[in-house]
Amino acid sequence: MKNYSEIYEQELISNVIPFWMKHSKDEKGGGYFNCLDRTGNVFDTDKFMWLQAREVWTFATLYNEQEARPEWLEMAKHGADFLEQHGRDAEGNWYFSLEQFGKPLVQPYNIFSDCFASMAFAALYKADPQEKYAQIAKDTFQNILKRQQNPKGKYNKAYPGTRDLKNFALPMILSNLSLEMEHLLDKQTVDDLLKAVIHEVMDIFYQQDSGLILENVNLDGSFSDSFDGRLINPGHTIEAMWFMMDLGVRLNDPKLIGRCVEIALRTLEYGWDKEYGGIFYFMDIKGHPVQQLEWDQKLWWVHLEALVCMAKGYALTGSVACKEWFLRLHEYSWKHFRDEEHGEWYAYLNRRGEVLLPLKGGKWKCCFHVPRALFQVARVLSAVEEENDRL
Amino acid sequence: MKNYSEIYEQELISNVIPFWMKHSKDEKGGGYFNCLDRTGNVFDTDKFMWLQAREVWTFATLYNEQEARPEWLEMAKHGADFLEQHGRDAEGNWYFSLEQFGKPLVQPYNIFSDCFASMAFAALYKADPQEKYAQIAKDTFQNILKRQQNPKGKYNKAYPGTRDLKNFALPMILSNLSLEMEHLLDKQTVDDLLKAVIHEVMDIFYQQDSGLILENVNLDGSFSDSFDGRLINPGHTIEAMWFMMDLGVRLNDPKLIGRCVEIALRTLEYGWDKEYGGIFYFMDIKGHPVQQLEWDQKLWWVHLEALVCMAKGYALTGSVACKEWFLRLHEYSWKHFRDEEHGEWYAYLNRRGEVLLPLKGGKWKCCFHVPRALFQVARVLSAVEEENDRL
Repeated sequence: MKNYSEIYEQELISNVIPFWMKHSKDEKGGGYFNCLDRTGNVFDTDKFMWLQAREVWTFATLYNEQEARPEWLEMAKHGADFLEQHGRDAEGNWYFSLEQFGKPLVQPYNIFSDCFASMAFAALYKADPQEKYAQIAKDTFQNILKRQQNPKGKYNKAYPGTRDLKNFALPMILSNLSLEMEHLLDKQTVDDLLKAVIHEVMDIFYQQDSGLILENVNLDGSFSDSFDGRLINPGHTIEAMWFMMDLGVRLNDPKLIGRCVEIALRTLEYGWDKEYGGIFYFMDIKGHPVQQLEWDQKLWWVHLEALVCMAKGYALTGSVACKEWFLRLHEYSWKHFRDEEHGEWYAYLNRRGEVLLPLKGGKWKCCFHVPRALFQVARVLSAVEEENDRL
Repeated sequence: MKNYSEIYEQELISNVIPFWMKHSKDEKGGGYFNCLDRTGNVFDTDKFMWLQAREVWTFATLYNEQEARPEWLEMAKHGADFLEQHGRDAEGNWYFSLEQFGKPLVQPYNIFSDCFASMAFAALYKADPQEKYAQIAKDTFQNILKRQQNPKGKYNKAYPGTRDLKNFALPMILSNLSLEMEHLLDKQTVDDLLKAVIHEVMDIFYQQDSGLILENVNLDGSFSDSFDGRLINPGHTIEAMWFMMDLGVRLNDPKLIGRCVEIALRTLEYGWDKEYGGIFYFMDIKGHPVQQLEWDQKLWWVHLEALVCMAKGYALTGSVACKEWFLRLHEYSWKHFRDEEHGEWYAYLNRRGEVLLPLKGGKWKCCFHVPRALFQVARVLSAVEEENDRL
């Protein structure tokens, strides 16, 4: 059997990270280029705050947890300088995007810009404990908590009172962010937050009858028979399940871990394309047509997060099903997403697994899901492989 | 050779209109069901204002121009009653969507709801000259003109001043709407408006060097090298070219018609998928990856509007290229979009021309592009066929 932890670590260190080190740094405008074509050439210079922050987080975290290479810390700080200088409006909300030199392009309508900014500065503070980094992370985090009931603010187009839904993405991200922020928050805040997000994810969004997690539910947690209410995003669910497993480890709660494994496996069975392989992007729990025209596409992050989830599920519970899914996902992902010729991984495949857009970085893909997943899988499996010889 | 005008008229009268007459009327909630599956079953009851208004327009226009069947007028008024009663906020802006019984769901952020509402009531007024219909059409039209500099109002997320772009869709729709509204407006208003929209479409959005039309340009008409600025929507261009041909006829301007034919043909060559056939949905004028994941899909309206455009181009100029493109588009569209088994046409195909979503009505497809195109092609070609025997 193969030594997967080495394969994943090798891919991270020798392929993926060098690609971003070489191509994404903007020496002139500051921060990172987000839009890189197949070979790494910059095809657009706009800067998306989600992605700038995520790249800061990736380099800071590699420095903290993989190896303290000075060039990684320097790369993280290069992005953080740009974010600190240009990223926020007067109220401290993070813009959605800026042009190359930092002028705001799109207003702060999207709270996930703030989530990834606080995650970035929290990780950077670990690497370089400057008080200003901690302050940005904490201020931003407080602002997220303040905005969480109406994250879109005045840009919210829903008419109030007719069909008030809550969305899965924010509790899902908060479950990860609360661990990322733990060193900057007091214990009571973290404990309360963890309890609340676990309840939201595992009781409210989780549906007992189907065993699946919905993207949107009514405020009281009940099912909304509408486009938004019927929507399932298997990748979101599976990613959230490894966030929850991390909480299970943190809280020493094997029952929670067991439930996460069960939900993740059910979601994989449900979301797997029996005809062409790979995991669908969007589905309707009643089998109706979805509004998302990209529903049948195969996205990089979905498959990478599923690899992490199955690796953790196997490592934490020894589940054979998790191991088998890991191997199936590994085969699909490395065959279809990895670019043997120009390095890094493709983002968007069509249903058949053919490349749909030949970019390595774009409005939503950056130096984040690929390296984070490679890092996570390598680390999780190395512990198991030491025990069991090899996977 | 076939008698295409008869084929298109037959399809309109015996297949498409009966489908909507049978399945889309909501006797309980008022208005129309928009979301119909392959067989015509209602799979969602939300009501989208674009689509409600467009169905009113279609039935009113068929009554006015095809045949004065009382059931068509009754169907138009059934939708108009619902729109009149529930469609607007206190300022007269049209909501984007309502739930089944008329409670607002999504705020009036989208000015095209207003465009199609004024078009609907203007057509209905021709069929049934009640003053209130004219008033709604005129009030809405004035409101559109008032809002046209910032159509999204407070929902506009662009940061002002960094990259102010103008979008092609509004001048394009106004070029059609000004003819649809002509019987309700004074001559000077129409003349000024026609002059302005022809200038916008044919001089500002049209790019001399490429011979193509861009979806977004800087306020001064120059090219913006950004995702939005590089975007081409071939279907939009081709649809706009038949709107412009109608203006060419109205203004007795054969030079304008000639330019429209030229641009439409160039756009078809540019947008045609040489590998699998059909017209791409979105493209980047520099060949870079677009943000729209659905870029390579084949959409019903794109192909139907292209059929209308080529039929008009052929009828007005005798262009052999238009005739050949009409025949090629006819073959592709009838083979891939038409549902032989359950009637009406599919909306969304993947790049290979396979059905991507098996709906007949959804958030964006309703009783509009299919019947309007069938009606237009039948009428345009019947005049030519009388002269030339058959196409």
